[in-house]
Amino acid sequence: MSEKVVILGSTGSIGTNTLEVIRQHPEEFTVVALAAGTNVEEMIKQAKAYRPKVVSMATKEAAEKVRFALDDSIQVLYGEEGLLEVATYHEATFVVSAIVGSRGLAPTLAAIQAGKKIGLANKESLITAGHIITEAAKKAGVPILPIDSEHSALFQCLNGERKQDVQRLIVTASGGAFRDWSREQLVNATPADALKHPNWSMGPKVTVDSATLMNKGLEVMEAHWLFGFPYEQIEVLIHPQSIIHSMVEFHDGAIMAQLGSPDMKVPIQYALSYPKRLPLSGEPLDFVQISRLDFRKPDFVQYPCLKMAYEAGRAGGTMPTVLNAANEVAVEQFLAGEIPFLAIEHKVEEALSSHQWIPHPSLSEIEEADRWAREFAKKIKIAHV
Amino acid sequence: MSEKVVILGSTGSIGTNTLEVIRQHPEEFTVVALAAGTNVEEMIKQAKAYRPKVVSMATKEAAEKVRFALDDSIQVLYGEEGLLEVATYHEATFVVSAIVGSRGLAPTLAAIQAGKKIGLANKESLITAGHIITEAAKKAGVPILPIDSEHSALFQCLNGERKQDVQRLIVTASGGAFRDWSREQLVNATPADALKHPNWSMGPKVTVDSATLMNKGLEVMEAHWLFGFPYEQIEVLIHPQSIIHSMVEFHDGAIMAQLGSPDMKVPIQYALSYPKRLPLSGEPLDFVQISRLDFRKPDFVQYPCLKMAYEAGRAGGTMPTVLNAANEVAVEQFLAGEIPFLAIEHKVEEALSSHQWIPHPSLSEIEEADRWAREFAKKIKIAHV
Repeated sequence: MSEKVVILGSTGSIGTNTLEVIRQHPEEFTVVALAAGTNVEEMIKQAKAYRPKVVSMATKEAAEKVRFALDDSIQVLYGEEGLLEVATYHEATFVVSAIVGSRGLAPTLAAIQAGKKIGLANKESLITAGHIITEAAKKAGVPILPIDSEHSALFQCLNGERKQDVQRLIVTASGGAFRDWSREQLVNATPADALKHPNWSMGPKVTVDSATLMNKGLEVMEAHWLFGFPYEQIEVLIHPQSIIHSMVEFHDGAIMAQLGSPDMKVPIQYALSYPKRLPLSGEPLDFVQISRLDFRKPDFVQYPCLKMAYEAGRAGGTMPTVLNAANEVAVEQFLAGEIPFLAIEHKVEEALSSHQWIPHPSLSEIEEADRWAREFAKKIKIAHV
Repeated sequence: MSEKVVILGSTGSIGTNTLEVIRQHPEEFTVVALAAGTNVEEMIKQAKAYRPKVVSMATKEAAEKVRFALDDSIQVLYGEEGLLEVATYHEATFVVSAIVGSRGLAPTLAAIQAGKKIGLANKESLITAGHIITEAAKKAGVPILPIDSEHSALFQCLNGERKQDVQRLIVTASGGAFRDWSREQLVNATPADALKHPNWSMGPKVTVDSATLMNKGLEVMEAHWLFGFPYEQIEVLIHPQSIIHSMVEFHDGAIMAQLGSPDMKVPIQYALSYPKRLPLSGEPLDFVQISRLDFRKPDFVQYPCLKMAYEAGRAGGTMPTVLNAANEVAVEQFLAGEIPFLAIEHKVEEALSSHQWIPHPSLSEIEEADRWAREFAKKIKIAHV
């Protein structure tokens, strides 16, 4: 039986890679619904190529343009309502949640409650509402399958193993663009410097987050919720080549690792095909060419964002939401040239220390904490860094 | 329910490590029978500590000494008959086959036919009689669990996966003592040089075999029989640090690897506890201290024994037996200072090319080929190398 797939965020990087995986396996996967933001041209192309039953755009205007270009057999919706309808589409068996940011949370939760299997790329769902999402998934009996490379690696390493046999999860990090910079050099780091990611080609926000290691801190939180291990059992290891995507150490001393080229299609397809694997075109990893893999310890002085992420994760409640929201604002301001690189960590720190912590927040309390943190982070003036 | 364990070869390196694993898990494993060669002192110590129901020694003389030192509650046997009785002991559920050399084949086969789970360390069982052993295991419905580090690593990487999803097995090799020597330098290589193995502390025969990479060739054959993949899907990769014990590449491009310290207790315990894992005392792997892992291609010119092993494996029948027997004789002669290092490969080559190949040999034809190859290899005179 083929998997009937919905993609939330179909025109983004995860979305287009998901469609490429589906294109390679027409017998295994069919697209039944797509949702995107305002990229009208790409959505029209996708709808014509994959013939979903329904598509949804973020705005009425974008939806009208898409409607105009397609025949009547494809339903076109828009807005929050359209997004939720796509996320819970009755024919769907599998929902790829790849909308970036907090907008992805509500449709992900709706898809879970509708009993769909989830391929999760939206970080905010677990970072801000991990307790709500995992509880809902448990209740609905649906699996949440990770589709970014680190968590997919952990998931593959845990395959066939018992949770009680795990000693620690080891999340690898490239170390980002500034891994060989001193703190003194970082004072003058520009957006152009930060965007030179050594291994993966990603969006600017994520690339800056890998330079601060905030990205890895957020991934540690996701791992905590996805696999149910305490923060004490989750470690970060700098591995500049990003060939080992992550590892799991067991209490007999054995370590399982998942390795591969930096190709998002591998984890995406694994989530879709699990527990099977399907062929996927691509160059096999050439160890002779790679020649060596390196490791070093992440330094909390070099990477204070990683330290703050662990602290926010351990505190729980609304702290991870505040960390994430303040970071988003600060990174935006840095990319716009409004604040220096080191102001990112200061803004996040200020937001965390000024926040009125709520231990078990509801969805609306999470939204409120998110809104507060964004406004607060925007307003903080950084005297000097 | 605890596993009732028999160890064939209990006083050797695998045997003593197996006992150490059992000692750490008295609720999980009990020793019911032990067999050894002529190491009387060690057997007495083991019997007193682990209280098996029966023990067996290679000779009547050794058995009498053991008998004298133990109380009557432990039965003492000897010879081929004693060994077979221990291998098929009625109370046993798990037989660790760790006798070195072709003497290990008959008791392993007997244990399989008696329906015991097998923890296999004896290489000859699969190399010389892979077709007989695997057929018998299939018929008896017993699993053959590998307990050397490379095959255990492959087995762990294959855990929870489908055979048809596998692209290739990647067996790692340290490259042995001579990995940085030129062919010219090898002309004068001494036994003392060959015995300087960079990572593992092993017996002299195996250490010389890792210097020629014959050991890896034999492991490729074992992997072929254990996991049922053709030689085209089994590759060898030089990895000097021996931290990655082996890997499996799948057809989606993902690679699973098993890593660890060079501690035989890990694979031994995994075989005994599979599919569970149990705690095992030992230092966790420290990636920061390891700092880097290297890889390079094994060179068939540098390592002609590896090339011959692939050829003998592909030919099948009695060829692997001849390769293995001729190599054993040649390594012995080299260690005794009777022939130069490069004569090992020449003796093996001569034996393979002079052998009357039998495609589907019976056990007695295997024994005959083994005997022939040993005599032949002993007699070959190497004019120059």
